[in-house]
Amino acid sequence: MSTSPIRTVGVIGAGVIGASWTALFLAKGLKVIATDPAPGAEAKLRAYLQEYCSAVPNPTLDAATCLQNFTFVPDIDPHLERLDLIQENGPERLDLKRRLFAHLDAKTPSHVLIASSSSGLPASQFVTDCTNNPSRILIGHPFNPPHLVPLVEIVPHPGTAEEYVTAAYRFYESLEKDPVIVRQETPGFIANRLQAAVCAEAYSLVSRGVVSPEDLDKTMASGLGLRWALNGPLMTNTLGGGASFAHFIDHLGPALKSWLEDMEAHKFDWSSEDTVEGLKDTVNGWVSQVDLKEVEGRRDVLLADLVRKKLDQEGKSG
Amino acid sequence: MSTSPIRTVGVIGAGVIGASWTALFLAKGLKVIATDPAPGAEAKLRAYLQEYCSAVPNPTLDAATCLQNFTFVPDIDPHLERLDLIQENGPERLDLKRRLFAHLDAKTPSHVLIASSSSGLPASQFVTDCTNNPSRILIGHPFNPPHLVPLVEIVPHPGTAEEYVTAAYRFYESLEKDPVIVRQETPGFIANRLQAAVCAEAYSLVSRGVVSPEDLDKTMASGLGLRWALNGPLMTNTLGGGASFAHFIDHLGPALKSWLEDMEAHKFDWSSEDTVEGLKDTVNGWVSQVDLKEVEGRRDVLLADLVRKKLDQEGKSG
Repeated sequence: MSTSPIRTVGVIGAGVIGASWTALFLAKGLKVIATDPAPGAEAKLRAYLQEYCSAVPNPTLDAATCLQNFTFVPDIDPHLERLDLIQENGPERLDLKRRLFAHLDAKTPSHVLIASSSSGLPASQFVTDCTNNPSRILIGHPFNPPHLVPLVEIVPHPGTAEEYVTAAYRFYESLEKDPVIVRQETPGFIANRLQAAVCAEAYSLVSRGVVSPEDLDKTMASGLGLRWALNGPLMTNTLGGGASFAHFIDHLGPALKSWLEDMEAHKFDWSSEDTVEGLKDTVNGWVSQVDLKEVEGRRDVLLADLVRKKLDQEGKSG
Repeated sequence: MSTSPIRTVGVIGAGVIGASWTALFLAKGLKVIATDPAPGAEAKLRAYLQEYCSAVPNPTLDAATCLQNFTFVPDIDPHLERLDLIQENGPERLDLKRRLFAHLDAKTPSHVLIASSSSGLPASQFVTDCTNNPSRILIGHPFNPPHLVPLVEIVPHPGTAEEYVTAAYRFYESLEKDPVIVRQETPGFIANRLQAAVCAEAYSLVSRGVVSPEDLDKTMASGLGLRWALNGPLMTNTLGGGASFAHFIDHLGPALKSWLEDMEAHKFDWSSEDTVEGLKDTVNGWVSQVDLKEVEGRRDVLLADLVRKKLDQEGKSG
């Protein structure tokens, strides 16, 4: 397992993502100083940590102990000198992020890594007013919920220095996350683009009546998704091609292309209000009969179990 | 768990898919009569069953006992009267399938369900010469390997009778598979279309150098895929939309659309030989350093474990 010199993390914004990050950082033995201007934010965050610190796979500290390393502050400024890293989770609004990053960059010692959880805005757009050291700013985009799902997309902007990309990589890896490096700023980064590709085709198939929403989801969760939880699409192609990706492309490429052409011809029509509203109704017709709390609870149990088993296989478990 | 009157299955073709089906059928307590014209097919199939019958989640019979229900025959014709269902796994060639189905349809008692594992050819194309009862023919497309992955895509052709769709559904469900019904013959059915959508974008991102092949796969297996193994894309959208699919579409639809537009603008160029060959080289540069046997072995262990845990959650385990 890689180690990282980072010991104290500043968490800016304690909504769903910030709270989950905080649970992870604490369970992994780090000190956290968190802030959030929303009314009641501290109480909400403490309640969340009470419940979720113990859900982190392979914790370094037990839930009661790790909470001693937690501080909530109304204003982060007097504490910026003590931080080794900032994980920012503010709203996805360009004007807010620009102001926030100009402020954090000006006030935080210039060697300190600043990572944004931004899921959409690329860092180049919000570091424009940073005059101290924008080269230590990058995106560290987690996948919800960060205390369970290992993926973190590290997205440097063109001015980010390589040393900070490396430092971020080591830091997330030291928490048993699986960081990936997105080498060019790309709308949606990697995960959301792959997700969009699946959603667009799913919406088309369901709105055309080819398959029910329930069966569409079953196709993923009882088939494709089971394989993709363990190997990505390129390795899956390779194994499907008898240990050769080239063989897969040569032999299955033509079929794949013909499906893509048919998909293109039957693309989901976002511009038709009837189509979009019809899809909502169809999906709602299924979902409204499902106990969503139970679905989410079951998912989280199996997700945590699967993440633990994968860490075991890699010989990483504590 | 649903029950099914089917007790004896004819397996036609014992390649990778036919062998895995046979292991499943036997472990679930069915009798199997298998045939395959390839030289050495019986010995290969018996060796496979010795190894894999015990890998089926929640078996009804132990591996040694279930093998007593297995017969290999050089010619299936004299045994067709004894079958309750045929699962066909011949080569994906239209001329062969047409002849095979005309023959099976003519010789098999006309109430017996005939399912094809065809992954590409729609049944309407190969039932053309069936004159006895083509209404009992449909596709039951498994996801590899069928003895582990629960998904089966049931695809009726326009002349398939509803009673046979229901019978197939009940049969696969009685084996703890997760059947889905594809209501219209569609190229690639459901799973392969969703897979093609992901592959096309993955190929584009990797060949444009946005992300390394290893990191592309990690994005799936450490992020997206973990969620999709447990819930499909529509439920994932719904949970991401705070328990409302409509809310998800209203609030995240515009971002999704903008990503899809960028993906369209940077589509993988299948027509450029340089691009396709470059992709093969890039993926091979990663894959050639990986022990594929180990990857596959690890996958199968976790896959079987995950399938078992999901059955437990649904209260289906033996």
